[in-house]
Amino acid sequence: MDTPRNLNLSATADRLQEFIRATVEAAGFSRLVVALSGGVDSSVAAALAARALGPRRMHPLLLPYRDWHAFGSQRARELTDALSIPAEQVAAIDIAPMVDSFLTALRLPPTGSPADVSTPESAVRVGNIMARARMIVLFDHSRRHEALVLGTENRSEHYLGYYTRFGDEASDLEPLRGLFKTEVVQLARYLGLPPSIVDAAPSAGLWQGQTDEGEFGFTYAEADSVLHAMFDRQWKEDEIVRLGIPHDIVRKVMAWVRRVEFKRELPHLGPGPVPAGDRPAQ
Amino acid sequence: MDTPRNLNLSATADRLQEFIRATVEAAGFSRLVVALSGGVDSSVAAALAARALGPRRMHPLLLPYRDWHAFGSQRARELTDALSIPAEQVAAIDIAPMVDSFLTALRLPPTGSPADVSTPESAVRVGNIMARARMIVLFDHSRRHEALVLGTENRSEHYLGYYTRFGDEASDLEPLRGLFKTEVVQLARYLGLPPSIVDAAPSAGLWQGQTDEGEFGFTYAEADSVLHAMFDRQWKEDEIVRLGIPHDIVRKVMAWVRRVEFKRELPHLGPGPVPAGDRPAQ
Repeated sequence: MDTPRNLNLSATADRLQEFIRATVEAAGFSRLVVALSGGVDSSVAAALAARALGPRRMHPLLLPYRDWHAFGSQRARELTDALSIPAEQVAAIDIAPMVDSFLTALRLPPTGSPADVSTPESAVRVGNIMARARMIVLFDHSRRHEALVLGTENRSEHYLGYYTRFGDEASDLEPLRGLFKTEVVQLARYLGLPPSIVDAAPSAGLWQGQTDEGEFGFTYAEADSVLHAMFDRQWKEDEIVRLGIPHDIVRKVMAWVRRVEFKRELPHLGPGPVPAGDRPAQ
Repeated sequence: MDTPRNLNLSATADRLQEFIRATVEAAGFSRLVVALSGGVDSSVAAALAARALGPRRMHPLLLPYRDWHAFGSQRARELTDALSIPAEQVAAIDIAPMVDSFLTALRLPPTGSPADVSTPESAVRVGNIMARARMIVLFDHSRRHEALVLGTENRSEHYLGYYTRFGDEASDLEPLRGLFKTEVVQLARYLGLPPSIVDAAPSAGLWQGQTDEGEFGFTYAEADSVLHAMFDRQWKEDEIVRLGIPHDIVRKVMAWVRRVEFKRELPHLGPGPVPAGDRPAQ
């Protein structure tokens, strides 16, 4: 994949590794839990953390919904083997019983039913419930192991608002928040992660067959070039199109960013009270 | 209750009401959902919001665990009646099936069992699961009603870290975050809320018989005086004790604040990558 910035991958890996080590130590902890999806972000975060703390201090969780993520779980197992994380420290919990109890209570159609597939709105609601049910299990796991929760969000997802609030974005530390998606993929290759992980089509895994790029209508390579121009160079639309990216793609990326600006600012905090004796402004 | 600041309650209510109205409008919404516990914070937040938007734009949710919060639910119904929120807009969902599915998957003892009562650590884990299960239901409700989520956290809870991350602290707007707990109670009285709500012992409702002040080992009146001195006046411990609050109470409050400083700063975000050509600092 093309990346908008030219990186020193070795120095970047060292810097992020040191960030993880120092953050965990400053918090008075020594262990990390992480939810592994088999995707490149959670794999790179776990690989850096295993280098920072040693594999014996990692407690990865696989959180599939039934057998929907069989390939992802298989790739996650490949990763924990490659990182030498002891098998007894890797836990897998099927989130289906928990998710399904919400679907029943909230009168959402069962997953996989025609009603579920046919209405995108209910697919989004179910996707949010899945991401948040994973958060509950992951944070409970962290409490049980006296560990911090390692986040796996990258800079592209952050700007595009491509996450569920209080779901997959919930964590204690976010080592990849400064890296675009294409840079995370580069780092994965540099770290020697299994090719099945490096080359997998990015997917939030919220429903079967879902891919991020399919939902966006643009590739991460395109998004990252636009985001870099917008946020690091403060370029306007007419400057960005000169990079050679099709104008409708530039517009689409910028529209995603604008649409989620509100989401990234939440929650809005109320003002202080009015002291006695003050006359409020009219 | 004694309060550390002398407020103009009428002007404060107007200011918060205007904050709610303007925030909802700026976000392009017109409705609010709120989880009502029967406690004073959610009651005051709902009362201000009903004044700001009108009771027909409010969609309150009662989220009891079985019959644990029967008094709370009764008080919440009294409130929605008092605020003239149409009964068909008030929903009640028992979170027990959802919470219990987590307890089973995470091998936590069933609620109410001797094992649950005898180990405070598992009570905390169950309490977190309850708060987060409520968040999932509340945010799904907000999506269904195209509404924002009204938060109910006050300034005292915030400084004392007295909330579950991604649980009861999850919201879109927090009108009460500038008010100490004792000020919220004053405002409740000013707004004419039912005495059963104004006078109820504050409780997070995480287990039966739990009260905030019992857990703290100090009252909100004491906490608020210390917090006001710490955060608004930047006083040190030896200055605060001159307020006439027992020294061990001042120490206890300050210890709570220090213990949760880490929690209030989360998550920690990673640094950016190292550009090619840069030599990283040794």
